Amino acid sequence: MSKVRVGVVGYGVVGKRVADAVALQDDMELVGIADVAANALVKVASEKKYPVFAAIPEATTGFENSGIKVAGRIEDLISQIDIVVDASPPGNPEKNLVKYEKAGVKAILEGGEKHELTGMSFNALANYEEAYGKDKVRVVSCNTTAECRVLSTINNAFGIEEAFLAITRRGADPVQIKSGPINATIPALPGFSHHAPDIVTVIPGLNVKSMAVKVSTTLMHVHIVQVRLTKLISRENIVDLFHRTPRILLITKNDNLPSSAHLLELARDRGRPRSDLWECAIWEESIVVENKTAYFMMGIHMESIIVPENVDCIRTMMEIEQDKWTSMYKTDVSMGFAKDKSCYG
Amino acid sequence: MSKVRVGVVGYGVVGKRVADAVALQDDMELVGIADVAANALVKVASEKKYPVFAAIPEATTGFENSGIKVAGRIEDLISQIDIVVDASPPGNPEKNLVKYEKAGVKAILEGGEKHELTGMSFNALANYEEAYGKDKVRVVSCNTTAECRVLSTINNAFGIEEAFLAITRRGADPVQIKSGPINATIPALPGFSHHAPDIVTVIPGLNVKSMAVKVSTTLMHVHIVQVRLTKLISRENIVDLFHRTPRILLITKNDNLPSSAHLLELARDRGRPRSDLWECAIWEESIVVENKTAYFMMGIHMESIIVPENVDCIRTMMEIEQDKWTSMYKTDVSMGFAKDKSCYG
Amino acid sequence: MSKVRVGVVGYGVVGKRVADAVALQDDMELVGIADVAANALVKVASEKKYPVFAAIPEATTGFENSGIKVAGRIEDLISQIDIVVDASPPGNPEKNLVKYEKAGVKAILEGGEKHELTGMSFNALANYEEAYGKDKVRVVSCNTTAECRVLSTINNAFGIEEAFLAITRRGADPVQIKSGPINATIPALPGFSHHAPDIVTVIPGLNVKSMAVKVSTTLMHVHIVQVRLTKLISRENIVDLFHRTPRILLITKNDNLPSSAHLLELARDRGRPRSDLWECAIWEESIVVENKTAYFMMGIHMESIIVPENVDCIRTMMEIEQDKWTSMYKTDVSMGFAKDKSCYG
Amino acid sequence: MSKVRVGVVGYGVVGKRVADAVALQDDMELVGIADVAANALVKVASEKKYPVFAAIPEATTGFENSGIKVAGRIEDLISQIDIVVDASPPGNPEKNLVKYEKAGVKAILEGGEKHELTGMSFNALANYEEAYGKDKVRVVSCNTTAECRVLSTINNAFGIEEAFLAITRRGADPVQIKSGPINATIPALPGFSHHAPDIVTVIPGLNVKSMAVKVSTTLMHVHIVQVRLTKLISRENIVDLFHRTPRILLITKNDNLPSSAHLLELARDRGRPRSDLWECAIWEESIVVENKTAYFMMGIHMESIIVPENVDCIRTMMEIEQDKWTSMYKTDVSMGFAKDKSCYG
Repeated sequence: MSKVRVGVVGYGVVGKRVADAVALQDDMELVGIADVAANALVKVASEKKYPVFAAIPEATTGFENSGIKVAGRIEDLISQIDIVVDASPPGNPEKNLVKYEKAGVKAILEGGEKHELTGMSFNALANYEEAYGKDKVRVVSCNTTAECRVLSTINNAFGIEEAFLAITRRGADPVQIKSGPINATIPALPGFSHHAPDIVTVIPGLNVKSMAVKVSTTLMHVHIVQVRLTKLISRENIVDLFHRTPRILLITKNDNLPSSAHLLELARDRGRPRSDLWECAIWEESIVVENKTAYFMMGIHMESIIVPENVDCIRTMMEIEQDKWTSMYKTDVSMGFAKDKSCYG
Repeated sequence: MSKVRVGVVGYGVVGKRVADAVALQDDMELVGIADVAANALVKVASEKKYPVFAAIPEATTGFENSGIKVAGRIEDLISQIDIVVDASPPGNPEKNLVKYEKAGVKAILEGGEKHELTGMSFNALANYEEAYGKDKVRVVSCNTTAECRVLSTINNAFGIEEAFLAITRRGADPVQIKSGPINATIPALPGFSHHAPDIVTVIPGLNVKSMAVKVSTTLMHVHIVQVRLTKLISRENIVDLFHRTPRILLITKNDNLPSSAHLLELARDRGRPRSDLWECAIWEESIVVENKTAYFMMGIHMESIIVPENVDCIRTMMEIEQDKWTSMYKTDVSMGFAKDKSCYG
Repeated sequence: MSKVRVGVVGYGVVGKRVADAVALQDDMELVGIADVAANALVKVASEKKYPVFAAIPEATTGFENSGIKVAGRIEDLISQIDIVVDASPPGNPEKNLVKYEKAGVKAILEGGEKHELTGMSFNALANYEEAYGKDKVRVVSCNTTAECRVLSTINNAFGIEEAFLAITRRGADPVQIKSGPINATIPALPGFSHHAPDIVTVIPGLNVKSMAVKVSTTLMHVHIVQVRLTKLISRENIVDLFHRTPRILLITKNDNLPSSAHLLELARDRGRPRSDLWECAIWEESIVVENKTAYFMMGIHMESIIVPENVDCIRTMMEIEQDKWTSMYKTDVSMGFAKDKSCYG
Repeated sequence: MSKVRVGVVGYGVVGKRVADAVALQDDMELVGIADVAANALVKVASEKKYPVFAAIPEATTGFENSGIKVAGRIEDLISQIDIVVDASPPGNPEKNLVKYEKAGVKAILEGGEKHELTGMSFNALANYEEAYGKDKVRVVSCNTTAECRVLSTINNAFGIEEAFLAITRRGADPVQIKSGPINATIPALPGFSHHAPDIVTVIPGLNVKSMAVKVSTTLMHVHIVQVRLTKLISRENIVDLFHRTPRILLITKNDNLPSSAHLLELARDRGRPRSDLWECAIWEESIVVENKTAYFMMGIHMESIIVPENVDCIRTMMEIEQDKWTSMYKTDVSMGFAKDKSCYG
């Protein structure tokens, strides 16, 4: 089978990670990446031998001045690929869509874009099959991806009557040095936050509400989750469920990882690229089940959690693989964080 | 009427604030404060002409070396007062209790101490009358005080079936420079946090649960509150309720105070001592009512919110005033943050 | 003597503080303040009975909707005053200058503006006399004000051959919740920072260099200062000098104030408005003198340190007082932080 | 040649990194690591197939309960090795020294220990030869290592008359979640900081002074360096020198890496293990040379900068390699950050 030819537009937080993950897949070929800025971070793409394309004409000179070999313009990239992952800054992908459609190139947008742009919002565990063969799909953002994994899993297993999420958002990504807050907590106003409605684009009909605050950390989001179920379950039921669900990492008491910083230290020590943590990390000790309601807390690495979903999304859109479990297992093995094969389906 | 003679033991975060508030009351006399450390902050007590007593014998020399006039030992203080507010470090008040009892001095302990030490945990709005004439009472801690105000008010007005609190705690007080976290979010483990059970020491039988995370800020706690009511109400009902409840400050959209830092900036600009904010500050825009459930977010200034309750607690324990509204109004007027008189009772 | 009529344009970090300080002076009358925003913080001006003027026509409606009584437009304010302190956002004062000149109103600009706009940059200790009778003067910014106080004092006493400043800047003011950094240190690039050249606008010919980093704190700047002197002195010489210089606060070992947070806690406890610290706070323990070089560290409260200088600047520009020491003493007494009178001159 | 058998005692911030680096060397064998705690981070040693020894008898059960296979006690480790790197908590290595000496095992201590314990403090660039064949040596701490690299290099090239360091220290390592400060700057008191005297243990006679503040970041230290030289040089001279010195990374304007967070993002993107940055990262734009004085700013990754020096130290103590450049090149190539071979010697 010939490999699917993939291009990545926008070599930032998401783009660079997706490019690396695509490069690991034996059924995909990373044809190149496109960006506008010629800094040391984009230069790394060049160091990794990824062909670098100029996302705007003016970028060419900058790249060359920085010693980055330019493989061509974005149009050249588009002409050589089957599918594009557009992770360029919010608003930009919408403009690019026309080019992709014209060139007959399928397109994945990221969670910063509106659901309406593609009409299809994706999460591997929740709705892999629905994206099969689609031409344009949105892979939802970090918090939504995390909750789609967790809530679809719980919903399938036990039935969800209502969920409520209290989200402590990271204030900024590590290199966003001009964002804040330095010393304040910022409520998301007004009313409920956008997270719950975004989950519903993936899991229609789910009864979920969310409120959020932004805090002074660059590491991870932390969610406090309350889920009212349709039936009585035990704490063991939910612990078991999380244990055997891919892309969910149960942190045990013995692990002694009492904060978001410790979760990432585990990723560092395990040699994960960029110290990334692709799983929803759920503190097992936080899980409480009372009557029909379950409560727990989880840490979400906002920079990386959406990476495996982007890979799966390519596979289902390109009709390489119909079965979500097969795709997810392949992705997770390639990236080095697969659970036991029995957890996949 | 002769004034009630009050002593404050422990001139730290709580003690210094309670001392200032007591000094404002026309029915109380601040006989003095006791502490162990002779730093510039304790010296301020001396600058304010508060008599300073040595909480331990060794303190005397230190005070004198720092130019603080020593009024005597803690035993001397105890012998001159009717009631003590012991805000010394956790564990210490328990040891002091024997001395107070022996001297026939009533005692208020703070929220860091166990409920069992006094058998009575206090919040003015929730159970002022029960503390009437009592010899020892615990004024509950910052988060508990805030929730007792809010939940007792809602419970009385609409009936609470169940409440759930997701608490984003400040990591440390401003001068706790050796506490963290600098860049991490720390879940309170295991299971539910201690906050809900602590509320129940004041409002027995209330069905409330809480989970908490600690974050990198020194300013305020922020609570996300979900309250299931026994009857249908409108959003206006709860907005109105908060508007006419003392010690609750509704922050409106026009106020444009979008973070905990802005809440304290308001306190600064209003000339509040130490830039303190004694009210539960509820963002009006955060209030949502759906079916029988209300949701909102509030900021809690952990250093100061318990101060008015300490003053009221003195009044009810000393049998100066039987009616909570009268005491609360007196306290709030003296401190300069009273709502319209019609809100009191 | 009739009072000097003062207007304050821009009721932000600097403007609101200068307004309060002017209101304390018996030789000045605060005619009013002008601003554009109708939030809770500007409303406080109204609560304090300061006449509020609309800095732009559109502001009027906003003020009225927020219950702020509008005293007129900025033109009305200008027509009633002798001198204006324009602390509106950088760039704006330049535009306003024409209006002030046309109306025959003297103008003080703040440190965010360029020296060239006024041709005269002011610091009370360094060059009070030069501003006497001037029509427009710039009061230099927080770091420059602090260094002008300290370096002019040392220069006058011992002669400075060369000074080097390593400045750890606060990342943002408390309410600047969208500034950073959350978790990073940012060097000021390229080369030397702007601080040293700015000092030279006040102390021409001074040989001073500076480098700076920005860090994650909202409280204070901290300076590491190295000063090579023209003659041999002892550590006691410089300690004594600082002791008897107004607006310099020596923090002793016994004070036990080991951080910038502790410095502000002292201001809080002393009942300073907004917990402000108007002095250069120098840790006495940090002072080292070796050969002809002195080293020390000081904390600078960026929000408030320039306030007394603004008051003095009004006095010298309006020819109320020719002697700097008399003006400074008057200002410091009115604000409640005067040293012994013998320190003034 | 048979491989040198190395043990690492203390698998924390330094120990785990040194273990990984040793495991990369073809002239060394990592016999095992010893620790006391059975958390998820130590478990990673086991996942990497490093033999794990119990540093205290009680550790064995904990390890076994956590599924860590125990290779024996620390005595067993000691009996199998030629040299130990003891990176256990400060104070502990002193106690272990007796055991090492008794067993005829050479020992490397880290910078948290006193110079007097070994009588020899090491930095590869500065004094590699002096450690040749020694039985116990201290590899100096992060800030000292950084300055020894830079100052010895400058001293050898141009002669240093006097150096002054203003150090902005990171408040805590990422997982030190109970350290602070959250929002404060803390001067190192009294007088000069310990850094300069520590440098002199490696470069005797160097005239260097340092002052330091601690700030709210977990990423890196940042140094502001002022060096007075014995002769006139140009800015290009020092830029060139840094360019061709191993373990110094010049960050150019085009790199667009304006903060410590960006420096580590480069390490992340380059696939460095744990996102470590082993070089002194000097912002080229910060370099100024005036008369005979040079100024610059550099970022120091406190967790990892000492790792290559530990590897070199093993080599010289074990008499594997007499030439520092050969050892350094070997180390840097193995770790993947070597400069061009011409830079080494």
